[in-house]
Amino acid sequence: MSQYWSDILNSLTPYKAGEQPQNRTYIKLNTNENPYPPCKKSIEKIKDLASDELRLYPDPEANQLKKAIADYYNVPKDAVFVGNSSDEVLALSFLSFFQQKEPILFPDLTYSFYPVYCSLYNIKFECIPLTENFDIEIKDFARTNGGIIFPNPNAPTGKYLETSKIETLLQQNQNSAVIIDEAYVDFGGESCIFLTAKYPNLLITQTFSKSRSLAGLRVGFAVGNPELIDGLNRVKNSFNSYPLDRLAIGGAVEAILDREYFDRCCNLIIKTREWTKEALESLGFYIVPSQANFLFVKHHHYSGKFIYEQLKNRGILVRYFDKDRIREFVRVSIGTIEDMKTFIDAIEIIINLPE
Amino acid sequence: MSQYWSDILNSLTPYKAGEQPQNRTYIKLNTNENPYPPCKKSIEKIKDLASDELRLYPDPEANQLKKAIADYYNVPKDAVFVGNSSDEVLALSFLSFFQQKEPILFPDLTYSFYPVYCSLYNIKFECIPLTENFDIEIKDFARTNGGIIFPNPNAPTGKYLETSKIETLLQQNQNSAVIIDEAYVDFGGESCIFLTAKYPNLLITQTFSKSRSLAGLRVGFAVGNPELIDGLNRVKNSFNSYPLDRLAIGGAVEAILDREYFDRCCNLIIKTREWTKEALESLGFYIVPSQANFLFVKHHHYSGKFIYEQLKNRGILVRYFDKDRIREFVRVSIGTIEDMKTFIDAIEIIINLPE
Repeated sequence: MSQYWSDILNSLTPYKAGEQPQNRTYIKLNTNENPYPPCKKSIEKIKDLASDELRLYPDPEANQLKKAIADYYNVPKDAVFVGNSSDEVLALSFLSFFQQKEPILFPDLTYSFYPVYCSLYNIKFECIPLTENFDIEIKDFARTNGGIIFPNPNAPTGKYLETSKIETLLQQNQNSAVIIDEAYVDFGGESCIFLTAKYPNLLITQTFSKSRSLAGLRVGFAVGNPELIDGLNRVKNSFNSYPLDRLAIGGAVEAILDREYFDRCCNLIIKTREWTKEALESLGFYIVPSQANFLFVKHHHYSGKFIYEQLKNRGILVRYFDKDRIREFVRVSIGTIEDMKTFIDAIEIIINLPE
Repeated sequence: MSQYWSDILNSLTPYKAGEQPQNRTYIKLNTNENPYPPCKKSIEKIKDLASDELRLYPDPEANQLKKAIADYYNVPKDAVFVGNSSDEVLALSFLSFFQQKEPILFPDLTYSFYPVYCSLYNIKFECIPLTENFDIEIKDFARTNGGIIFPNPNAPTGKYLETSKIETLLQQNQNSAVIIDEAYVDFGGESCIFLTAKYPNLLITQTFSKSRSLAGLRVGFAVGNPELIDGLNRVKNSFNSYPLDRLAIGGAVEAILDREYFDRCCNLIIKTREWTKEALESLGFYIVPSQANFLFVKHHHYSGKFIYEQLKNRGILVRYFDKDRIREFVRVSIGTIEDMKTFIDAIEIIINLPE
């Protein structure tokens, strides 16, 4: 607290990202990074762009990147918004669409940045409980609201909702914005981007940090009706004219263009996820069905905190959430097959420790 | 307008940055970019960092960069905040410190993003007129306020205020935050960073886009009392955990470390500014005294708009502001000596056109 702070600062509880320890090397299975490197062309492009031209501002509209995304998803360029990570895109979206009289709705178990954005922008919200099996129940969202948001697949569960159910939600909810946060959709789900042409209140957000292996570059985007995108641009141009640097624009364009490498990485991660799932099941774990690049798992005997701590002692980081309903769980990002073998070996030792 | 927009969107008038035409090559003297490339070590470092590690998130605290800036300015590391451009740092600062009951104060002629941030965050403001000579008069700011901000040197005038006058302001204004935006201070001014240890309400913002030749990389920072910096971190961590990518952190660190190259570029720009000033004076221009990397100039006969348009026709971009009190002026960024000779040649032709 400080006498110079705005009131809003005193009421904020900032988001806590997963640990990023700088002191030693861990097998990092805690922040859903991609275990495979970015495509070679991204890296080459960034090296090319690391030149004298960095003295010049980037294109404030990042037109090249918008065009690449629009072509990839077969939508008009003015249906695409880009930003410095999907977190920034989400933050600007909350401000653009969710400051309403009625509360916005999101699941009780979901991306924990959503309530933080609400406190930052003074947005009322209500949490809709997931079912006992961690399902999003569409009919529970059928109430007056100032907007609806959830990730699909959801985080930290990994559970995926069929696009037909999201279309049902859109049919029942036409008076406020609906944001589907597709950070993890490329690991087995189907994107709802095709629905944006039909539903003017639908915004899809995605990130380059997961399926496109560029967490270190900070690029996210949104696709929606040009009227929604126009709103986002107005807010962006009232906040920071040039959120994407020259290297990020160029590197992200190449990542979109290299479809073959992208498919290969996603498929490998899906295969490794299924291998890990079976191995954990055989060791007495319950696993939430996942279409994401992580598994949300609990052991029938050991707590989430115990497993998290024991793994950390052994140089493996996973994510533990000290939160009602999910204290028994840990979230395990899918690494390379070698990472996951090391992880399973460590788990075997941990669950067989003498008590 | 759209039924899905928050109310705030309907009242926003976004900031308009200087033109960044993508269609043809101009001599760009319109957005105060540095005519000299970034230091070689920045570029090498970025090439090194363009690697498989881009799959991993950056350090959310950008500790390396904070340390480099802290060492350079001889302040504690927790007195330093970094962000994705000084525009982002300013936006977050407005939200952190300026949402107050009383209006904030800034000059009538100044960086035109300030009123935009105010409309984004619903902040009241009052404009304090510059004197007829475009001076900031400290005594005019002696009134109840929720905060004070101006650039030093000011934009778009380039006029510099002695640090002793800023200390007078701080002595008379201890109950609200004072932000000095030092985007242009390295071209002949003295930074007020040394005053941050003494005045807990003083925040200094700076950018890597001007004196450090990295407009294309998007890095800005702030220095102030750790209590102010803590407030900024809370807001940043409620908006976007990782605003600076791996390449931006590494490239900016090298730019701070290479003091010799930095000094050389700044001195060259100062020398070229003085040459340009004399050349323009001899052609009938009035020039506001400038300690920045631009000159704010008017011709005794031709309007600012005419000169802007005539220069643009000749492949030279300068900045024209269609705004009361300054319609007669154009703002000319200082390029290389070759750029400025071309500019002066064009000006000679323009002012001798048959009417």
